[in-house]
Amino acid sequence: MDERVGVQERFSAPPADPDVVEQLAAKYSTWGRWGEHDEAGTLNEAGREQVGQAAALVRDGAVFSLSLNFDANGPQSGEFGRVNPIHTMLQDGGDILAGAQRHLNMEYTDDAVYMPLQCGTQWDALSHSFYRQKMYNGHGPERVTSAGAEKNSIDKVASRFVGRGVLADLPRYAGRPWLDPGEPITSEVLADCLAAQRVELRPGDFLMVRTGHLAAARARGAWGDYVGGSSPGLSVHAAPLLCETRVAAVAIDTWTTEVWPAEVPAIRTSVHVILLVHAGIHLGEMFDLDALAEACAVDGRFEFLFVAPALPITGAVGSPVNPLALR
Amino acid sequence: MDERVGVQERFSAPPADPDVVEQLAAKYSTWGRWGEHDEAGTLNEAGREQVGQAAALVRDGAVFSLSLNFDANGPQSGEFGRVNPIHTMLQDGGDILAGAQRHLNMEYTDDAVYMPLQCGTQWDALSHSFYRQKMYNGHGPERVTSAGAEKNSIDKVASRFVGRGVLADLPRYAGRPWLDPGEPITSEVLADCLAAQRVELRPGDFLMVRTGHLAAARARGAWGDYVGGSSPGLSVHAAPLLCETRVAAVAIDTWTTEVWPAEVPAIRTSVHVILLVHAGIHLGEMFDLDALAEACAVDGRFEFLFVAPALPITGAVGSPVNPLALR
Amino acid sequence: MDERVGVQERFSAPPADPDVVEQLAAKYSTWGRWGEHDEAGTLNEAGREQVGQAAALVRDGAVFSLSLNFDANGPQSGEFGRVNPIHTMLQDGGDILAGAQRHLNMEYTDDAVYMPLQCGTQWDALSHSFYRQKMYNGHGPERVTSAGAEKNSIDKVASRFVGRGVLADLPRYAGRPWLDPGEPITSEVLADCLAAQRVELRPGDFLMVRTGHLAAARARGAWGDYVGGSSPGLSVHAAPLLCETRVAAVAIDTWTTEVWPAEVPAIRTSVHVILLVHAGIHLGEMFDLDALAEACAVDGRFEFLFVAPALPITGAVGSPVNPLALR
Amino acid sequence: MDERVGVQERFSAPPADPDVVEQLAAKYSTWGRWGEHDEAGTLNEAGREQVGQAAALVRDGAVFSLSLNFDANGPQSGEFGRVNPIHTMLQDGGDILAGAQRHLNMEYTDDAVYMPLQCGTQWDALSHSFYRQKMYNGHGPERVTSAGAEKNSIDKVASRFVGRGVLADLPRYAGRPWLDPGEPITSEVLADCLAAQRVELRPGDFLMVRTGHLAAARARGAWGDYVGGSSPGLSVHAAPLLCETRVAAVAIDTWTTEVWPAEVPAIRTSVHVILLVHAGIHLGEMFDLDALAEACAVDGRFEFLFVAPALPITGAVGSPVNPLALR
Repeated sequence: MDERVGVQERFSAPPADPDVVEQLAAKYSTWGRWGEHDEAGTLNEAGREQVGQAAALVRDGAVFSLSLNFDANGPQSGEFGRVNPIHTMLQDGGDILAGAQRHLNMEYTDDAVYMPLQCGTQWDALSHSFYRQKMYNGHGPERVTSAGAEKNSIDKVASRFVGRGVLADLPRYAGRPWLDPGEPITSEVLADCLAAQRVELRPGDFLMVRTGHLAAARARGAWGDYVGGSSPGLSVHAAPLLCETRVAAVAIDTWTTEVWPAEVPAIRTSVHVILLVHAGIHLGEMFDLDALAEACAVDGRFEFLFVAPALPITGAVGSPVNPLALR
Repeated sequence: MDERVGVQERFSAPPADPDVVEQLAAKYSTWGRWGEHDEAGTLNEAGREQVGQAAALVRDGAVFSLSLNFDANGPQSGEFGRVNPIHTMLQDGGDILAGAQRHLNMEYTDDAVYMPLQCGTQWDALSHSFYRQKMYNGHGPERVTSAGAEKNSIDKVASRFVGRGVLADLPRYAGRPWLDPGEPITSEVLADCLAAQRVELRPGDFLMVRTGHLAAARARGAWGDYVGGSSPGLSVHAAPLLCETRVAAVAIDTWTTEVWPAEVPAIRTSVHVILLVHAGIHLGEMFDLDALAEACAVDGRFEFLFVAPALPITGAVGSPVNPLALR
Repeated sequence: MDERVGVQERFSAPPADPDVVEQLAAKYSTWGRWGEHDEAGTLNEAGREQVGQAAALVRDGAVFSLSLNFDANGPQSGEFGRVNPIHTMLQDGGDILAGAQRHLNMEYTDDAVYMPLQCGTQWDALSHSFYRQKMYNGHGPERVTSAGAEKNSIDKVASRFVGRGVLADLPRYAGRPWLDPGEPITSEVLADCLAAQRVELRPGDFLMVRTGHLAAARARGAWGDYVGGSSPGLSVHAAPLLCETRVAAVAIDTWTTEVWPAEVPAIRTSVHVILLVHAGIHLGEMFDLDALAEACAVDGRFEFLFVAPALPITGAVGSPVNPLALR
Repeated sequence: MDERVGVQERFSAPPADPDVVEQLAAKYSTWGRWGEHDEAGTLNEAGREQVGQAAALVRDGAVFSLSLNFDANGPQSGEFGRVNPIHTMLQDGGDILAGAQRHLNMEYTDDAVYMPLQCGTQWDALSHSFYRQKMYNGHGPERVTSAGAEKNSIDKVASRFVGRGVLADLPRYAGRPWLDPGEPITSEVLADCLAAQRVELRPGDFLMVRTGHLAAARARGAWGDYVGGSSPGLSVHAAPLLCETRVAAVAIDTWTTEVWPAEVPAIRTSVHVILLVHAGIHLGEMFDLDALAEACAVDGRFEFLFVAPALPITGAVGSPVNPLALR
């Protein structure tokens, strides 16, 4: 894609209701596909072959980080207990100045962080969402206690976020700086965008969906309701493309993947229900795709080696991540 | 290397004293080499060219994690404020069972962590160590306050830990399951090991030094004094090879990189002083190299694509990391 | 009591089994006594009259703290997520030395703590224990979610730990420096001790039970298994005295109130079940009664004004406390 | 005082500048008065005699808490690292429902908190403020490192906040619901108010200064800029009354004790400099005096037994507190 396509209209989606959600969830469920003990879901689609092929996509060695910084100035408001990271120094330069380390014959600094694991750029584990009291592969809520997740925790798959990355740069395709809050992304929109970009989506791919919602926050110089507010995002009608193509995972530059307000108020996380709970697709949120998108647009290559290891925090239902795109 | 070399003796190192440390620090200082504003040190050696070449090392697409899990059963004792990660659930399956989320029309789990940034597998930032009140590139302690590091923090280089990885598997070279506590690793030892492995160390490489000290803890089934106790590790006499070859970074499977007890009691972190403070070489600690070493030994290839992004925690002096080796 | 009584034998208790526990729980249940909405339990026994009378016990104005310090050197091992307090500086003197506050025209320090609420000297809230899925006044587990306790939380009664305090100094009574691990305390033992001390236990009193178990840890200079290990403590057979006298609350110098190992393995917290869950008696643990006991022994007065406000942390199931005895 | 006095004008204060601050600091300095090793300051004025007399003030046994609740809905915005308390459950009712504790033969809940020590109702320790790099009794910033305060920490005096409390209810005296933001309180205002209330301030008293600023926040139903914004408070010209009367400590219902914006911009914490740093007077902030004030107004008794133990967190520069007034 070497020019802005300039789609004139706002994207739209067919209606959805609980029946549609349940039909899509049932249709695309992968429970049992990789065995009853599987905890990786569609990451199983990104095997050695895919990794090997993806490595061959690296040409000039440019590395792009898809992560926001983690700090007190992040997007969180504290609602639902999600505060921004609290970074504290255990030893700092002031201690050196104060002579507090003199008896140790060393001069050092040290620090710690308290952070909700999903406060910034992050992976949702397959244990992050439930529907009708079941998570991926049919496990019940009793498998995620105060001690953490016994099943589907992020540490079980922390090193499997490696493969071919593909970017769908929707604002560029639409000829607008960003999609609007509440604007839904369907399979058709994704397919058209990828076609315009002349890139094919393949099984085992990691699809990066750029809505520009993060760019909008950046442009206004304030987070505002970036987290918790209206947002463009995936429609439940994005499921066919993602599931039939058998992507390994999907990441986006919004806070909750789904178009918000919820398409189906009675099932407010209907995209999570279909993709995460039933299809077993890990979801990445608050990915910063802006710099990568700039580079992809320059040379028209929208594929790259994607390496986004989670931290293997035992029993965690999510993980902060600094995802890298190597081109 | 398809057979154990079987070095018969314990490795040893020439003596060292503060003068030796200062001479090595002065000789290998890179302050100013990449400009007075540089905060990346020898990561500058791993540029696009190196990344591109490293990607070509990927053959069968096998991915190895070099990270320990992060949890309450980690190696820390709490000394110096370094506790093991504290993982807490903000929402869990019990809340779903209790109906606490019913009014939200969703079912989800969420969690948080408190962790010292260097409690497990981690990168030391260039702001982690000082000598005579200076850190890399000459900045004083007043640049690392309770608000974090203004200079040389990990977020400035979080995405630059990418390039060619090379493993030096010392226990295998030595024909022993692990090196002994207090056993020093010199340039000669490293050079001999790499030669035996028939792998060349090049500028911009990420050198992984396996001592087996982690394997020893694993074998005894208890951390014991893995952190804080006697340990094999780099001698100050490892500096010539690392600095003259211009490696990008060095990582190891011990808690403090250096041989411990300290070679030079008056400068207890003398290896940090030479490598981190003066040469500008980032140090990785508590890397789990055992599985990777097994694979390298099988086919005799001790090089790989190394991707180990830090979390860009603003102002942090270190970062947990899940380093990956792609072969 | 101006001399050590010198009880020669180790205290013992009649046998107990689940039936005994359930009978005692049923017999002494106060559910409904103060209304179905009550969340204070026997703290209702310590009303204005009791507070007024207790204030008259203050003679020379000596104030005794019954609290351990809260710090990293506390008794916790980390088991069950109970770590010792983690105290971190948000601003410290080093920042002043570094000039980091100069632009503010002020010089200050600030700090924070992470602490399990029951890691040191503390009150158990009535929401801390359940039996057969019920807590005090019959509420179910769904009332204590990740968002905290809706019922029986400590903030509901935080200011009601005020009244007449009475000390039962069992080691002094027994003529030994401390009771033995596993030694049970029954109603008879308590009654005999109080009689020997010539002090009457009355409705609405706060009874402090000194076992010497903390003194033993202090004497050996190490916490060891002070938390989690064998311990003297209340037998289920202490219930008749405490419940029939209608005490307001009970505190002790051990980690779990109850004799340990548990008297009734099938109901490991049987004393909590009877006293906290059914009788509605708040329990104080890890109270340091040693200095107070010394003073009481000198003048033979074992009663005092007791003021031990909890921190009103909303929804908390316990609270650290610095209890004071005014004599 | 049985009627509102109805002062017609807004309170005002004479001008102040750095010279005035330094003169007052010098005039009222108590450094050395109780010895060079003293860490209690004017708490020394509240000895056994004062405690004994204060206990006699208790008549009907009514207990008033002067504390806000500690929770996520507190007044903090996160600025300067001061977040509201983060309360997390380590075990909750959901775990009981999930059967996660079944193997333990117990049913329990447990929790933890992360909180800046001065995020709510709290005591400033004498190590909280410095002026010209000195805190109370002349110690330098090197005595407060990342490891905490070696001198003047709150644990040294945690149990000494006991004595005669006196309330100065300024809004009532002024015939207004609350003082205005920026309205200064001088010695004359305090003296007039106390005279109108017919209560004498004596050495060793704990003076509670009610401005109504908290009541104003309560009335508007939102914290707004209660913390950090303009506020009524003590003028530097309050020092003569407080220091010459030799009060033990002063507490107030605002966030920073001092009138804000600062009277002397060049020394923004000038009241802290005079009272805390030089006079050695501990300061209590965000005390909720509203309910107590109601009761005092009813019977015209503005004195009470004041018991406000700090948590003895080792090395802390402040402490949350649930202060009690017993009448």
